[in-house]
Order: sequence, then C-alpha cells, then structure tokens
Amino acid sequence: MMDGLILHEDPRSANCYKIRLTAGLLGLKLERRSYDIMKGETRTPAFLAGVNANGRIPVIQIGTGDGARFLPESDAACWYLAEGTPLIPGSRFARADMLRWMFWEQYNHEPNVATLRFWLYFVGEAKLSDLQRLQLPAKRAGGEAALALMDDHLARQPFMVGDEVSLADIVLYAYTHVCEGGGFRLRDHPNVCAWLARVAALPGYVAFE
Amino acid sequence: MMDGLILHEDPRSANCYKIRLTAGLLGLKLERRSYDIMKGETRTPAFLAGVNANGRIPVIQIGTGDGARFLPESDAACWYLAEGTPLIPGSRFARADMLRWMFWEQYNHEPNVATLRFWLYFVGEAKLSDLQRLQLPAKRAGGEAALALMDDHLARQPFMVGDEVSLADIVLYAYTHVCEGGGFRLRDHPNVCAWLARVAALPGYVAFE
Repeated sequence: MMDGLILHEDPRSANCYKIRLTAGLLGLKLERRSYDIMKGETRTPAFLAGVNANGRIPVIQIGTGDGARFLPESDAACWYLAEGTPLIPGSRFARADMLRWMFWEQYNHEPNVATLRFWLYFVGEAKLSDLQRLQLPAKRAGGEAALALMDDHLARQPFMVGDEVSLADIVLYAYTHVCEGGGFRLRDHPNVCAWLARVAALPGYVAFE
Repeated sequence: MMDGLILHEDPRSANCYKIRLTAGLLGLKLERRSYDIMKGETRTPAFLAGVNANGRIPVIQIGTGDGARFLPESDAACWYLAEGTPLIPGSRFARADMLRWMFWEQYNHEPNVATLRFWLYFVGEAKLSDLQRLQLPAKRAGGEAALALMDDHLARQPFMVGDEVSLADIVLYAYTHVCEGGGFRLRDHPNVCAWLARVAALPGYVAFE
C-alpha cells in the first residue's frame, strides 16, 4: 500500500477522474486538493512554482515537505499507481500495446472527445471564440473516428488490450463515458456501450461526480 | 537481441525517426518499409486492414506471417524496443516521470512543434486551408511554450529525467531538433541546444535523413 498520495485536481476534469478510478480499482487512498481551472487557479505563481510549471492538473504528489515529488500528466500518474499490479499486463507486447492505446488517447481521442465536451458543456457554444467555432467540424470528425475505431476494436475483445482490464481501459473510459456532453451519441457505438458497462462493473469502481 | 523487427514508416516523419534513433542507441536492427503519407499510402484498404486501422505510421511489426504482431504509436514502439535496457530508468518514480514527458510530448509538443513543421515545411503556407492558417498563432504560442518549458527544465539537469538519457529525450529530440522547419528558433533556447548536442553525441546515435 502506498501512503502520502495527494491528487491536485479539478473534480470536473475527467483527466483527474482517471487517477481516482485507478486508485479505486487498486484500493489506494488519495488525499484530494481542488482547484478551479475556470478561475485560473492552476496558473498562479504558487501553483506554477510548487506543483506544475506547465500550469495543468492533474498532478500526483508523493510525500510532503522537502521530499515531496510531483508527477503531472494523468496517464503517467495512473502508471505510477498501477506498477506491479494486474492493471499493467505482464507480457512485453501487451504492456507496449497498452501504452499504444494510452498515447493514442492523448493524441487522437482526448483533443477531440474531451475538448468538445469542454467547449460545449462547460464554456458553452455561444461563448466560443471564432477559432474554436471553426474547429468544431474537424473536432467532431476526429472524435467520431476515435469512437468508431474503439467500437470496431471492442467488437473483437472485451477490453482494449485482450481479455483483462488494463490502464488503457481506465484512461479511455474517463472521457468516453461522458462524451455525450460533447454532442457524441453513445448509442451509435454498441460495443463501446457494452465495454463501458464492463468497466463500471469492476470491483472498486468509483463513479465520476 | 530482438529479431524480425520491421518498421513501417515515412522516412520524412520524425515520429518514425524516434524509433530508428531508439534502435540505433540499442544496437537493434530494423527492416524498413516506406510509405508516402502525402500520397495517402497509409490510407489504402491493405494498410488499414493489415498494418494499422488508424491509418498512421509509424508501426512496428514484430515477426512475419500468421504470428506477426503490429504496434502503432511511436512512443509505444520505443517503449517496446527499450524495455529492460538503461533507456528506461530503474526507479519507479523516474520511470513514471519519463512517461510523463512522453505523454506531454504527444499532447503539448507534437501537435504544435511537429504540426507547424508539417504545415510550413511540407505543405507550404500558400497551400494551407483557411482553418489551418487561422490556427497558426495558437500553434506558434503552444510550440514556444513547450520549448520554453523544456529550456527551463534543462537548465537544471542534463537530460529530461535526471542525469541519464532515457526515452523521454529520444522522443522529444525528434521534432525539437528540426523545429526550425516550423519557424521556431533554437538559438532562443540555449539549454535545449546544449541538450540536443548531448543527444547527438551518444554512442549509436543515427541522424535524421
């Protein structure tokens, strides 16, 4: 059991939820510190100097005081928590394949599926900049392609990397299960829906709030 | 020594170069198969069905025939090649910290630094779509912020994760060392320049072509 884990987060961010879900499935305890990203609370001098120079959450803090260490990037934090557990596959190829889906999540899924949710659900379409509004069709197409690729992949296997749940499922679950906030329709992707239900049925599952 | 490694690539892509550089530093032999992304050669039915349903390179193929396995995503391919070698740090925190920079590369660095190089160096500014042209200032600012963050980080340590080279250096080196093709100025980032020279001096280093 790891002690002294502090999650610096905005509870509305599904990137932060990835870490809470990983901790839940592993039975790890996290102390939580909240910041409001809409109010710029992760861009203050204290946050930039003391938590993350990149001005973003989530960040996992390990320990306190002079020995405290800080780990930004949601998928890296999940890896840190899960090393040595069944959430990371035991075979070399499967481990790399899990990372493949995690990098794909950051490059192909999150910038489309998560960004549209942020723009449409939190900012609101009426308040978008012209540049954001012009990007909506490309983000929509990119998000639909990502969900379609997952649906096709999950037609052949129960989890993203074979027969067992791994971090690839956790990090993709986070924004996929709330994608309708960005205007995507889960019912168009039945294999994704069945997979979401499998993840939500796992022992230790914690819900997004 | 791993045998039967085939790299499906476009030699002009620095994402593909990441894998060649990893293999070079490790003394691994790669068979190379080239595709021209500008001619859509990674979007053919044969490529989508046989190599990567996501229509992208690079992909590492391990073995041939019925037992062949395919691993897309450049950073995951580097991980596969480097497992069990000094290019992946031995301590749990350092390993996660390396992945932190690799995820950061995919989310904060590549979509700005690499995309501007592709748009300005390969496509050409005159041929950009209106939407691409409108995104230039945001991509420029994002890329400058990424390079500045690296420069600040590298003021305090010789490599991205402490005193030893790791995959974080390799994957960030790829597009950083050719960022001037996207209109960035390396001389504005002296610590980055010194780090580029350290990477280029490593035994087994292979140049981008």
